[in-house]
Amino acid sequence: MHDGNIFGNSFKIVSFGESHGKCMGCVIDGCPAGVKISKQDIQKELDQRRPQNSIGSTKRAEPDQCEILSGVFNGYTTGAPICLIVWNKDVDSSYYESIKDTPRPGHADFTAFIKYGGFNDYRGGGRFSGRSTISIVLAGAIAKKILLTQLNIQILSYIKSVANISSKLPPPTDLSTIHRDPLTKCIDPSIIEDIKNAISDAQHQGDSLGGIIESIALNLPPGLGEPFFDTLEGDLSKILFAIPAVKAVEFGSGFMSSTLTGSKHNDPFIIKKGKILTSSNNSGGINGGISNGMPIIFRTTIKPTPSISISQKTVNIKTLQPTSIKIRGRHDTIIALRAVPVIESATAIVILDHAIRSHIIPPIIK
Amino acid sequence: MHDGNIFGNSFKIVSFGESHGKCMGCVIDGCPAGVKISKQDIQKELDQRRPQNSIGSTKRAEPDQCEILSGVFNGYTTGAPICLIVWNKDVDSSYYESIKDTPRPGHADFTAFIKYGGFNDYRGGGRFSGRSTISIVLAGAIAKKILLTQLNIQILSYIKSVANISSKLPPPTDLSTIHRDPLTKCIDPSIIEDIKNAISDAQHQGDSLGGIIESIALNLPPGLGEPFFDTLEGDLSKILFAIPAVKAVEFGSGFMSSTLTGSKHNDPFIIKKGKILTSSNNSGGINGGISNGMPIIFRTTIKPTPSISISQKTVNIKTLQPTSIKIRGRHDTIIALRAVPVIESATAIVILDHAIRSHIIPPIIK
Amino acid sequence: MHDGNIFGNSFKIVSFGESHGKCMGCVIDGCPAGVKISKQDIQKELDQRRPQNSIGSTKRAEPDQCEILSGVFNGYTTGAPICLIVWNKDVDSSYYESIKDTPRPGHADFTAFIKYGGFNDYRGGGRFSGRSTISIVLAGAIAKKILLTQLNIQILSYIKSVANISSKLPPPTDLSTIHRDPLTKCIDPSIIEDIKNAISDAQHQGDSLGGIIESIALNLPPGLGEPFFDTLEGDLSKILFAIPAVKAVEFGSGFMSSTLTGSKHNDPFIIKKGKILTSSNNSGGINGGISNGMPIIFRTTIKPTPSISISQKTVNIKTLQPTSIKIRGRHDTIIALRAVPVIESATAIVILDHAIRSHIIPPIIK
Amino acid sequence: MHDGNIFGNSFKIVSFGESHGKCMGCVIDGCPAGVKISKQDIQKELDQRRPQNSIGSTKRAEPDQCEILSGVFNGYTTGAPICLIVWNKDVDSSYYESIKDTPRPGHADFTAFIKYGGFNDYRGGGRFSGRSTISIVLAGAIAKKILLTQLNIQILSYIKSVANISSKLPPPTDLSTIHRDPLTKCIDPSIIEDIKNAISDAQHQGDSLGGIIESIALNLPPGLGEPFFDTLEGDLSKILFAIPAVKAVEFGSGFMSSTLTGSKHNDPFIIKKGKILTSSNNSGGINGGISNGMPIIFRTTIKPTPSISISQKTVNIKTLQPTSIKIRGRHDTIIALRAVPVIESATAIVILDHAIRSHIIPPIIK
Repeated sequence: MHDGNIFGNSFKIVSFGESHGKCMGCVIDGCPAGVKISKQDIQKELDQRRPQNSIGSTKRAEPDQCEILSGVFNGYTTGAPICLIVWNKDVDSSYYESIKDTPRPGHADFTAFIKYGGFNDYRGGGRFSGRSTISIVLAGAIAKKILLTQLNIQILSYIKSVANISSKLPPPTDLSTIHRDPLTKCIDPSIIEDIKNAISDAQHQGDSLGGIIESIALNLPPGLGEPFFDTLEGDLSKILFAIPAVKAVEFGSGFMSSTLTGSKHNDPFIIKKGKILTSSNNSGGINGGISNGMPIIFRTTIKPTPSISISQKTVNIKTLQPTSIKIRGRHDTIIALRAVPVIESATAIVILDHAIRSHIIPPIIK
Repeated sequence: MHDGNIFGNSFKIVSFGESHGKCMGCVIDGCPAGVKISKQDIQKELDQRRPQNSIGSTKRAEPDQCEILSGVFNGYTTGAPICLIVWNKDVDSSYYESIKDTPRPGHADFTAFIKYGGFNDYRGGGRFSGRSTISIVLAGAIAKKILLTQLNIQILSYIKSVANISSKLPPPTDLSTIHRDPLTKCIDPSIIEDIKNAISDAQHQGDSLGGIIESIALNLPPGLGEPFFDTLEGDLSKILFAIPAVKAVEFGSGFMSSTLTGSKHNDPFIIKKGKILTSSNNSGGINGGISNGMPIIFRTTIKPTPSISISQKTVNIKTLQPTSIKIRGRHDTIIALRAVPVIESATAIVILDHAIRSHIIPPIIK
Repeated sequence: MHDGNIFGNSFKIVSFGESHGKCMGCVIDGCPAGVKISKQDIQKELDQRRPQNSIGSTKRAEPDQCEILSGVFNGYTTGAPICLIVWNKDVDSSYYESIKDTPRPGHADFTAFIKYGGFNDYRGGGRFSGRSTISIVLAGAIAKKILLTQLNIQILSYIKSVANISSKLPPPTDLSTIHRDPLTKCIDPSIIEDIKNAISDAQHQGDSLGGIIESIALNLPPGLGEPFFDTLEGDLSKILFAIPAVKAVEFGSGFMSSTLTGSKHNDPFIIKKGKILTSSNNSGGINGGISNGMPIIFRTTIKPTPSISISQKTVNIKTLQPTSIKIRGRHDTIIALRAVPVIESATAIVILDHAIRSHIIPPIIK
Repeated sequence: MHDGNIFGNSFKIVSFGESHGKCMGCVIDGCPAGVKISKQDIQKELDQRRPQNSIGSTKRAEPDQCEILSGVFNGYTTGAPICLIVWNKDVDSSYYESIKDTPRPGHADFTAFIKYGGFNDYRGGGRFSGRSTISIVLAGAIAKKILLTQLNIQILSYIKSVANISSKLPPPTDLSTIHRDPLTKCIDPSIIEDIKNAISDAQHQGDSLGGIIESIALNLPPGLGEPFFDTLEGDLSKILFAIPAVKAVEFGSGFMSSTLTGSKHNDPFIIKKGKILTSSNNSGGINGGISNGMPIIFRTTIKPTPSISISQKTVNIKTLQPTSIKIRGRHDTIIALRAVPVIESATAIVILDHAIRSHIIPPIIK
């Protein structure tokens, strides 16, 4: 009952904070001791999520500076819970008072009102704001650092498509040669201009766009994942659907797999440099819910931002009368771009959780 | 560490059993007391899953009879944990000895070998067999009954597509007029023959097919789902990915949503018979991870069955030499058909779990 | 809501079964793979709990034979959930129909009736029977074997006192020289006769006795326990209070500690054979909730068996009229004796759970 | 692995913060929406725990002012996670540098060093400081308010004994007539002077004292507690052992029960004003792990504060050489007094957790 803000088995994260409250934050319970961590390690990831770093983003000018409240001593994690905070600075709630009785279509205003009996903090969407994803980025920053330094696990998320503009590139197998465009989060230079134009057009029309994010994780050891229920796909999809606006998740061949035959779809096993690999990767690096040593590949669909300035039909929840709403406030034309670092962080959290759970990452890092 | 066989928050299910072991089973911890339940209630659902009831299915002739070991007294649930068992009867493990060192492509043989150090029960895929889904159907039978009798919540899953044969019908809004074809699990008569032919063709070629399953749940009250992490979509997707061969999950508009604009995608609120509804249902009945009172709609993609009799490349995990494998044994040409009742059950489990968690279903049913 | 039948973090146990139902059982979720385990390993521990092996015990003549339903293959654990069953054979429920409306003083009849709305299986106390502790012994047998073979951790519980007859011996530090009397579970020969006489007297009077059980665990490595909440004491006490009739738990100096001064109570650190030890052990081997390498020592108080044949006052829960009850049926004069192997098992479960959680026991035992 | 800082099932609390770090804090996940809560409600409970309010307490002069970071809006809980913080102000860590290699007897210095590989924050005991109990008081303040306003559940803890000075009064049945002495937390005026003198003597000798705390909870409805494992006693004892210095817990007749016969110990059922009660309360208000409607009664033993200024033997953990230590710093002569409000809070947390879990407290309070 209202206790759904904790995620993870061994590396647990607790999310708290509201869009227009004092702060956004998270507590990490289960971080190994001995991890060298600085504010800068975390800030670097937070900055990727800042609207200033994507096009078509909200004008809300949050500095989004991280503060470490506990769990780090002399520059290293102690094994105690780590509380991380980002103070909200640029809050303007005036508008939300005027629309608190008229739920915005595509938003959680209505369901939150029902679920919490009208006691929910409706300002800026409260808990349902995209700003809640800061808690994922805070924890993800630490997870990414541990995975990279301990196991050389590299994670990258990037825009695969915006509206109907889609990259044809296969997922990269070597990140050292990849450049992710900071404004569009795209790694395919051939579609960057089209994306910018589409976003600019939507912005002028007061409308919004959706997109698809592809994610890869390289160098995972085989053996991560705890079937029957706590599969890698299951845990990844669960955290992904916590990110506002996610509508679909597919692994490897994904939806396309339904149209292939088994003889086309199965990934044959081969030996390469003494290791067992598969020559194709329709599995997305996961068999039976367990990593197989191939790259993890999945795609996440982000719906168009529900906040648009075009007039929409809604109702007044107090009077039950129909009305209409034009959403003002400061919003992203395409939230998908800003979801990219969030999904990267979420991926790191799940992989680290399973790496600890499988005893591949030890309790003390020396 | 190997402790991933428990699912749920308030209505918890524990899965156990191996394909060629003594039995498949589950324990339900958290069932309300006072639910009238009989073996027949459960058997009815189990029978939906039996291969005899789908085309292109395994020849393994399991009677799949349910036994209630605990938690039911005088025909009613007691509030104590309910242990349900299906004894394995038609076990033929001879073949698996011969292939235990040559992992079958597309199966979990390799990852299970790595994860459990070779101690896993490899006969018939062991825990990774489709037979493990019996535990979901056992618990789902009880969940479905509670939801129907207490809240009139109706759940239906059906084949939306097989290979490239796809139904164009919209999701039904009234189940009383729907007939699900028992052999193909399809509710669109116009594609049933095509599906049968495609399956028959694949069978003759020793190949296999995939498909997409659509699921709906009607009459959910608004307010189910526990954000930030324990959203309805998150919990549904987590259990869905536990079902072998699931590659993708999408809610409402799903993958398509990325190509729409916000003005097209947002579901306008309307008043109908004094209730707040939306005039379209791109959200799939869920906003912010919480049910909004509209039908829950999602689709699950099932890859083609990995077991095919066509020769495939693999390696010997002991000698690390390449080899090839033609899979014998008794397998389904299209596992998607048999996944239909499993997904229906999984849906019921998640909805009931949240209905209890939200205090909509009480501890004692009178 | 009714979902309290799962215990543990990494080595999870799920308890099910009723005293007069088909069976008692448990599922272990999280056992390492590669543990050599036989029915005999488990039967040996079950036999310790059988009434035939203690004096003053119930006449119910259960063979209490263990059956392994899943998770063991070719004599070794597989990493899959282990379901263990003991079929109930000697069930005589006739008596319980006659007293189902008159709760037995000191029993859970009344609270179970209230909690489960009268749907609970009241025969033989149902879930609240001492027979439910079989699930702890089943899982404890495996835990004890792993701890002994992997870490040489030795666990012993024994009767410290019965009624006012109390042993003055300090806890043993070497188990090889200890003989636990099979009938009284006592390791102090000087009080065995007195105990037997006291039990015999109580039996003749139709009354019952209580006792105190002392437990030790030797050779624990330092570092087990997960503060702030999941301390060794916290987890041990939690499972101990699940055992019917436990009224108190104390660690090390226990209740006595309140009367000492800090200078007397603190355990000074010393060096012995290059290891840091303490010269006294008032801490009971635990500081800050974490094992310190000294023997774990605790005591558990078991109240007198509530079932007595002397007439007692009670009420009829349907008519709300006062009445009286003389309990027939087959009962233990002193349940404390039979709780000894249960507490030993419970201790092993908690220690193994923490040993896995601390990565001291690996996922695969080779 | 290091993830033991979360407690509770439905009303979850997450503890974080170190004694000499920035702050102590907690997150509550699962609080009902609609609870009127102010800083003053929480501050009132925090003040009970402040050293200024007990005799023989540390000279550390913390204002211990509470700050609400999230989850409360317009004076009411929202259903979102509530983060509560107490900033550390009066930190003096200089002394701890000098003793960081010489573990203090009776403290967790040694076990923390082993468990966290020396990365733990050792200043003022870090996570193992009595200051960590602030997180319990923060959450307990809200729990107490909900229980009192919704169910009229009243909870009181008080000093039962200090050293050998023990109150003979039975537990009160009506709190309106009880006065708890603010300095000694004692409700029996006849022993207050003796307690003060004993503490004063110990203080002058540089030594410390222990004590026993009795707790009662009145007006609990019957039916709280989730056997088999999540019993009321089990959950209470688990959180009690998280409080530093707790060595023993007993319910109702407790340790004494082992010396009684069943005919003396069983609580006979009676009818009083149409309700089923028991005429004695040896059960401490709990049968089979479930509340029976009688007052909950338990006692907790607190060992003497380990910090004393008398010289003690210890070792240097780096050089493994014996040495001695006289503890300076600012410490309590008897931590038991300050544990009183902590135990009261812990009791409220467990009862509220079970009241929500049993659906007695609803998700929204109106």
